[in-house]
Amino acid sequence: MTDPPAAPRPYSPGLEGVIAGETSLSLVDGERGRLTYRGYRIGDLVARGSYPAVANLLWTGDWDPTHHLPTGPIPAQVMTVLRALPETTKPMDALRTAVSAWGATQELPWPPTIEQARAVTSFSPSALAAFARLRAGQEPIDPDPSLELVEGFLYQLTGQRPDIGTARALDAYFIVGAEHGFNASTFTARVVTSTRSDIASAVVAAIGTMKGPLHGGAPSEVVDQLSQMESAESAEAWVREALDRGDRLMGFGHRVYRAYDPRAAALRTVAEGMEHKPDWLERAIEVEDVVLRVLAEKHPERALKTNVEYYAAPVLMGVGLAPDLFPAAFSLSRHAGWTAHALEQAADNRLIRPSVNYIGSAERDLPA
Amino acid sequence: MTDPPAAPRPYSPGLEGVIAGETSLSLVDGERGRLTYRGYRIGDLVARGSYPAVANLLWTGDWDPTHHLPTGPIPAQVMTVLRALPETTKPMDALRTAVSAWGATQELPWPPTIEQARAVTSFSPSALAAFARLRAGQEPIDPDPSLELVEGFLYQLTGQRPDIGTARALDAYFIVGAEHGFNASTFTARVVTSTRSDIASAVVAAIGTMKGPLHGGAPSEVVDQLSQMESAESAEAWVREALDRGDRLMGFGHRVYRAYDPRAAALRTVAEGMEHKPDWLERAIEVEDVVLRVLAEKHPERALKTNVEYYAAPVLMGVGLAPDLFPAAFSLSRHAGWTAHALEQAADNRLIRPSVNYIGSAERDLPA
Repeated sequence: MTDPPAAPRPYSPGLEGVIAGETSLSLVDGERGRLTYRGYRIGDLVARGSYPAVANLLWTGDWDPTHHLPTGPIPAQVMTVLRALPETTKPMDALRTAVSAWGATQELPWPPTIEQARAVTSFSPSALAAFARLRAGQEPIDPDPSLELVEGFLYQLTGQRPDIGTARALDAYFIVGAEHGFNASTFTARVVTSTRSDIASAVVAAIGTMKGPLHGGAPSEVVDQLSQMESAESAEAWVREALDRGDRLMGFGHRVYRAYDPRAAALRTVAEGMEHKPDWLERAIEVEDVVLRVLAEKHPERALKTNVEYYAAPVLMGVGLAPDLFPAAFSLSRHAGWTAHALEQAADNRLIRPSVNYIGSAERDLPA
Repeated sequence: MTDPPAAPRPYSPGLEGVIAGETSLSLVDGERGRLTYRGYRIGDLVARGSYPAVANLLWTGDWDPTHHLPTGPIPAQVMTVLRALPETTKPMDALRTAVSAWGATQELPWPPTIEQARAVTSFSPSALAAFARLRAGQEPIDPDPSLELVEGFLYQLTGQRPDIGTARALDAYFIVGAEHGFNASTFTARVVTSTRSDIASAVVAAIGTMKGPLHGGAPSEVVDQLSQMESAESAEAWVREALDRGDRLMGFGHRVYRAYDPRAAALRTVAEGMEHKPDWLERAIEVEDVVLRVLAEKHPERALKTNVEYYAAPVLMGVGLAPDLFPAAFSLSRHAGWTAHALEQAADNRLIRPSVNYIGSAERDLPA
């Protein structure tokens, strides 16, 4: 028996401002534009770390910059599942189904473990790469356990080891995407875990949550916008016209960040340091300052700064990902955070079960 | 841009007592032991309705006792997925994967529709029946669109049309399992939907949530207990010994209901009205009064009344379901509620994204 429920509080739609848990994993400080994972600044982690090191940090709390995390094998049954999916399958549906089938082939006893977190985080890039090849009529490529996760993913996607700059840019994207507090997908993963369900169920639910455009975004729109703003010169006219029409600019403004999104800053820094930038990144850097200047001039009252999507899109285009794979790539990066939250939830578990206001019909008899 | 977040409120672990949304679908009144769907008492719905009528009521608000809802077809790609799963796959993993693969084969545009809700609710019984046959080395059976959902499920499971009593008992179970406010799985379905993700993603996430024993229960334990309490006579001694040992009795007491669980009452009424009761139901009825009498005598301070699991187990055993299929059968019944909540969430949508208390390390430099 549990204690009687606490007295209900005022209803806050969308649980806005309602504290639903505690975490040691990340601090999102929207006012100051700061993001830390276990206390370490996101810019430092991107500058000196790698996705495997960051995932390990989130799971264990330990900083080991040389931590090794390759992509994982695809069980034969899961490969059969991937081959069965229609080639028109949406990538998020394919990833969700692949992880669900993977979970069906694994023993994943409660409580979730770091090994389980590693296993699903390393499985999913292989699954997404296999799906992308299969739908293009190509055979999947086996993981190379000597490669780190992001390099391995690109190798399995293209059949070639990526150049250092390409791998570095995508690794930086994976680091900034790894964790971000109680967003909707992470919160879902914690609710699933709170019932003592398994880590695959948590990740599957999180993928399905991130599939929604209010969470996973609409990355192709950022790409379209960058395509239209061809250079710094034409960008200025384009931005002024868009704002005059009342259009929303993609890649600027954020629900949480009032200041410059520290993830965008970290990605720009990596981009600026690259010897041979992909064209998309080159253009994004050129255009950004123009957009910010026009925004500040036309809307000084709004705190519209660059957000992470602005740099995510050119990074993902730059490494050759099709735009319809962007949300799935975002999901791959967030595996570290989802699974770290599953571990954290399980370590001090309590069923997450809110109350609901009934606003329906009074009690009544069925019609005769 | 959204408004600045509201001021944080005191932290309530597990969101206990926190109102996370509004609903017109059901009212759970734990103090008085009452449950209504759209205002209609659960006992009346079981006495005069059917699962198709109740599902339609939840989706549309309209009461049509003759509403027709058969089981649905399994797309060829999904059958390939089911055949690929190892025969040792846990039924909840199989159902989660089947619904995910089904979603991958469907167009499910936002917002979710009643047709989408019907489609996934009618698909899943066929998928679970096919899985149960495949793991037993039997071929799946095509749906018979002339049968109502519960009868069709039993037909696809066994190859035979069930007798009226068996179908009636399971239909009653499906009605009482159809909806129950903001339990963890339903809440998950609403969080997923709130991102504008699709109805299959919502149901997949809900199945993964219900897989957890804190939500989906441990039905085999109720079966074990009933096996040990062989008759009303031996039950009394068994219960007294169990309570003296401090053991928890399965099927008695509930997180929400202080009074007799109205779902258990409805199932008992159906059982009592059956001409030829399955042995399991006969025994459950005999034993229940003994247990309640001993509980009231030994623990008058506790409000331990019969809960729905006490009657769910003998109903499911009575229709010949293997105990490891019970949580999946529970999930089939809850499809109506999950999908009705997806429709309700979408109709007045707002992203569900709570806040979190950061309790981790202060900002720090990476080790040199």
